[in-house]
Amino acid sequence: MATEKIIMGIDPGLTRCGIAVISQKSMRELSMLGVDVLLTPPESPLEQRLLSIEGEIEKWILKFKPNVLAVERVFAQHNVRTVMGTGQAAGIALLVAARHGIPVAMHTPSEVKAAVTGSGRAGKVQVAEMVKRILNLETIPKPVDATDALALTITHAWRGEGTSRLASAVKAEKERIAKLRNS
Amino acid sequence: MATEKIIMGIDPGLTRCGIAVISQKSMRELSMLGVDVLLTPPESPLEQRLLSIEGEIEKWILKFKPNVLAVERVFAQHNVRTVMGTGQAAGIALLVAARHGIPVAMHTPSEVKAAVTGSGRAGKVQVAEMVKRILNLETIPKPVDATDALALTITHAWRGEGTSRLASAVKAEKERIAKLRNS
Repeated sequence: MATEKIIMGIDPGLTRCGIAVISQKSMRELSMLGVDVLLTPPESPLEQRLLSIEGEIEKWILKFKPNVLAVERVFAQHNVRTVMGTGQAAGIALLVAARHGIPVAMHTPSEVKAAVTGSGRAGKVQVAEMVKRILNLETIPKPVDATDALALTITHAWRGEGTSRLASAVKAEKERIAKLRNS
Repeated sequence: MATEKIIMGIDPGLTRCGIAVISQKSMRELSMLGVDVLLTPPESPLEQRLLSIEGEIEKWILKFKPNVLAVERVFAQHNVRTVMGTGQAAGIALLVAARHGIPVAMHTPSEVKAAVTGSGRAGKVQVAEMVKRILNLETIPKPVDATDALALTITHAWRGEGTSRLASAVKAEKERIAKLRNS
């Protein structure tokens, strides 16, 4: 890797949205540039919360000028009560990235756990501990949401485009075959 | 009602997003200003689709300068496979409205059906037929997504702030009571 790569990670959420940025100088040479949890008050109107998340992500993008944005993939199955807000926060992260021409990639929670700890079923503490070691941090970043966003950037540094590219390729191929069958 | 009110309605969707604008001069004096279905190709990357929806909604808002944006409320229970994209499209509509300082309101599908036809269980055709009559249209707008967005604007014209305000009030009251109990 000739040049430094800046990777931003977003662990989407409406009430708590983890955001982190790392620098990657070589495959294993990673360092933390920033980490935070964006908060929006649950009593605020949804549209104001989304606007606030957009504004914060925009600020981070302007500040760190990431080469790529990694977003945790949200599943509709998880928690029906909160999944909509999580999905909307993720959507806004993707939107802001696209507006700035920054490529995006999505990684599932189990991919993140596996990349960082070696096990797709690792617990929060184990992930946090590994994040601390990998980034040579003195303490585990708090709160946990912050650790998750960092874990996502590490995953991206090691896995690269990962699932989103693969998924697109598989989908395109399926559509190509379907077209051939119909013609 | 002293002045004309411009109401924009969005029936959110990632592949097909219904959008409509009506003018309300008095309670029952409604007329259609525009209707369309925004399309984004399923084979495009998600972030590009979201960006395209944002751009289109932005254009409509700049063109029609609505006083309010009514968005169909999406439920996570409905269709797990498509609900995430629908929620994200809705989130972007809310975001764009908030950015322009346009108040938003959400109405459920059954509220829309009830407002337009008198029955919360009315079918698509019945809703479409009533939309045509209420707006004095020569034919039923096509495709159906377009009719749904129009039905949403009519619902808003008649119900006003409706559920979103009500829901906020109920939530605030619950929180107030919970605080009193804890003090």
